[in-house]
Amino acid sequence: MSIEAQNPSQTDLERLPLDIARIHELAESLLPVYEQIEANRPLEEHKLNTCLVELIGLLRELHPADVATVLESLPQKERMLVWHLAAPEEDGEVLLEVSDAVRETLIETMDKEELLAAVEDLDADELAELADDLPNQVVYEALKTRDEEERAQVQAAMSYEDDQVGALMDFELVSIRADVSCEVVLRYLRRFEQLPDHTDKIFVVDDHEVLQGVLPIRKLLVADPEERVENVMATEVVRFRPEDDAEEAAQAFERYDLVTAPVVDENKKLIGRVTIDEMVDVIREESEADMLNMAGLQEEEDLFAPVLDSVKNRWMWLAINLCTAFIASRVIGAFEGSIAKIVALAALMPIVAGIGGNSGNQTITMIVRAMATGQLSGNQARRLLKKEVAVALVNGVIWGSVMGLVSWLLYDSPGIGLVMVAAMTLNLLLAATVGVLIPVAMEKAGRDPALGSSVLITAVTDSGGFLIFLGLATIFLL
Amino acid sequence: MSIEAQNPSQTDLERLPLDIARIHELAESLLPVYEQIEANRPLEEHKLNTCLVELIGLLRELHPADVATVLESLPQKERMLVWHLAAPEEDGEVLLEVSDAVRETLIETMDKEELLAAVEDLDADELAELADDLPNQVVYEALKTRDEEERAQVQAAMSYEDDQVGALMDFELVSIRADVSCEVVLRYLRRFEQLPDHTDKIFVVDDHEVLQGVLPIRKLLVADPEERVENVMATEVVRFRPEDDAEEAAQAFERYDLVTAPVVDENKKLIGRVTIDEMVDVIREESEADMLNMAGLQEEEDLFAPVLDSVKNRWMWLAINLCTAFIASRVIGAFEGSIAKIVALAALMPIVAGIGGNSGNQTITMIVRAMATGQLSGNQARRLLKKEVAVALVNGVIWGSVMGLVSWLLYDSPGIGLVMVAAMTLNLLLAATVGVLIPVAMEKAGRDPALGSSVLITAVTDSGGFLIFLGLATIFLL
Repeated sequence: MSIEAQNPSQTDLERLPLDIARIHELAESLLPVYEQIEANRPLEEHKLNTCLVELIGLLRELHPADVATVLESLPQKERMLVWHLAAPEEDGEVLLEVSDAVRETLIETMDKEELLAAVEDLDADELAELADDLPNQVVYEALKTRDEEERAQVQAAMSYEDDQVGALMDFELVSIRADVSCEVVLRYLRRFEQLPDHTDKIFVVDDHEVLQGVLPIRKLLVADPEERVENVMATEVVRFRPEDDAEEAAQAFERYDLVTAPVVDENKKLIGRVTIDEMVDVIREESEADMLNMAGLQEEEDLFAPVLDSVKNRWMWLAINLCTAFIASRVIGAFEGSIAKIVALAALMPIVAGIGGNSGNQTITMIVRAMATGQLSGNQARRLLKKEVAVALVNGVIWGSVMGLVSWLLYDSPGIGLVMVAAMTLNLLLAATVGVLIPVAMEKAGRDPALGSSVLITAVTDSGGFLIFLGLATIFLL
Repeated sequence: MSIEAQNPSQTDLERLPLDIARIHELAESLLPVYEQIEANRPLEEHKLNTCLVELIGLLRELHPADVATVLESLPQKERMLVWHLAAPEEDGEVLLEVSDAVRETLIETMDKEELLAAVEDLDADELAELADDLPNQVVYEALKTRDEEERAQVQAAMSYEDDQVGALMDFELVSIRADVSCEVVLRYLRRFEQLPDHTDKIFVVDDHEVLQGVLPIRKLLVADPEERVENVMATEVVRFRPEDDAEEAAQAFERYDLVTAPVVDENKKLIGRVTIDEMVDVIREESEADMLNMAGLQEEEDLFAPVLDSVKNRWMWLAINLCTAFIASRVIGAFEGSIAKIVALAALMPIVAGIGGNSGNQTITMIVRAMATGQLSGNQARRLLKKEVAVALVNGVIWGSVMGLVSWLLYDSPGIGLVMVAAMTLNLLLAATVGVLIPVAMEKAGRDPALGSSVLITAVTDSGGFLIFLGLATIFLL
């Protein structure tokens, strides 16, 4: 990709990483004179001055979204330096683009005037998005400069949860009546300074702002100018309510290839619209949240967060993991007598637990994914369980036999080999069963099936694996 | 969301799952007469006939993307029944929407005539997308019905890898010259039957089809009709090359909020365009692939795949896991003498290994994610390593002390407690180091850092944890 780069033979997909790397270098070399730069005092050394000019030039050329990426990729100190040098008129846009964790660190460094200047040019929905992270005084003063309608919009947007359509909608509506001709619409549009981003359709409403349909620009452009809007507009409209779940709305955008969609209230009155760029963010964040949660991170983390912030973000899952590991340890403790007699058991038991955990994670990941994309409803659980159990049985017999044979040869004991086959098969069956039941139960209970599923399944297959293996060994080998 | 549902009080976000559930019920009840339905023989039983009529009606109402979701959510037998009953004129669209695994099962049931009918109305890029899964004879005959230009487009699209922009571009280009007036453009557009999906900009080219700029529809609509295109068009254009990486292109779409973008060849000649709907699929698949790979699944799996297909999809990671578990087992085996003397070691060692694995997975997931979004470049690895080591040290001292105390009390041995503190801290430090180094090394080697990272880190922290704990115990406690 390229944004018509200066060097036309180099595409921009290649240029951005190079720019970022160069900014890193420059920021690092300017770090020693950070305080002078912050105080806007001139730099004496010529070489540093050249660096400073180059850095400012690079930053001014970057799109706000790219500045956001640069800030996210920098350690705290360099980040502050670059933030200080970035174009202040883009501050608001950049704040909207950075991750929540980094946004906090940036806002902390700004005083009230800077913040007010940054949010001055933002739309109502954008101001609402930042409002939670801004000091109350700033929000209050920023609202004072807006008119009544915009204040109401900010408040409306702020009244919805982050995962609701209402928090993501904007208010840049272009709407027309159904009884005018396409020619009139075209003339009406020409009176705008510019049309809102992503405008791919115009909303058709009646006298009470009730949504009647939409007029896709694609149709407007090819329609006979004399034709009335009501004969050209689409009445089968995908529309949302502000209370709708943002993830489900994003899936609808994906499924029906939407670019924008109207948001209506309970009386079908048009109140806002959602655009694909917000939905893409939802899709990205949703998949990432699942991945982070499965790995035991509470939320997205600033790569260069202070150590204690990182510790806090991770301590909960570590603590839970420690508890489950302790339970597994007590299961082993109960069989210390057996281990004392056959020490080989201690060496073999992690294999049984490990394969159960791995296989259970495969099952649970597949099911969590199927649930996220709406492929799986509760009443298929029984059928899926049957299939997963069959897969586990095949894997158990194959891999159990392999490891059974290896154990037999290693410890010269057919008994240990047979216990190994049986324990591995049983633990795989346990993993398959629990791997289906945990996410199904979580979803029935109205909870996110991804949350902690990996830790839970590993807990079961660890303790279960030790119990099965040591139990069988105690019964048959002692 | 709703597509103006029959029952206007019910929104469609709620309706689709209900429809799907009802289709499941109907398909199940019709299963006994599957053969009669397939042979298009009339059903004798009145009740079944009513079911059949309702099922066909429901399917005809659904969007092809929703039919795809229904098919993905059905077990094989019911899936075939529903596929047989779905509107044949939508077959091509549905095949494009379903996952690769399910697509194969559907194509298997269709004969040559059905397949040719299904792909008849598809665009060149869509035919190219399906071509890999279609029998050669079908592709050959489908191409015969196309004109020279379309055949060239299909072949061009098929010549790129799945993860390149070229495989995702389409050829529905609307292009104009720079020296005409906006009025002329509007008149030119009116001659189209309809404009391509997602048209948000018109491409401006010279006499040799070289891209000069783009004319956003938003600007065209508000421009003075007398104004020439060259004065209205944007020349800073985000454009791609067909060889560009699809993931990076998708990130550019996300960053710059694009709806469509031109694709040009090495001479800057316009050859195609990419649209946001394809990019959304890339974003979704990319995050999912990371998640599946980390859990040890090779690829997206049909939920109701035959047991042996599922076994095949999972066996590789299970085998790798088994190998690493075996190595860990041999590490323990080397300390059998120590365990025989202090059996408590066997019970405590999984705790040390477990916390290392959990913590290492947190680190590696965070880094893999940062790499996927371009936040992390190689030269920050050292700094990140320092931070992660510091986090590990804090966690090690806190949780190590907790478990050290518990072990001391449990086994009434301060020595075991101290070994526990030291081993946990050291294994956490190992996990942090390897958790940073594995993805950085993978990326330097040009490989996907997500692939197998979880299995690798667990292998290191398991074997490493056992070695550290049993080693320290052997030195200090025996």
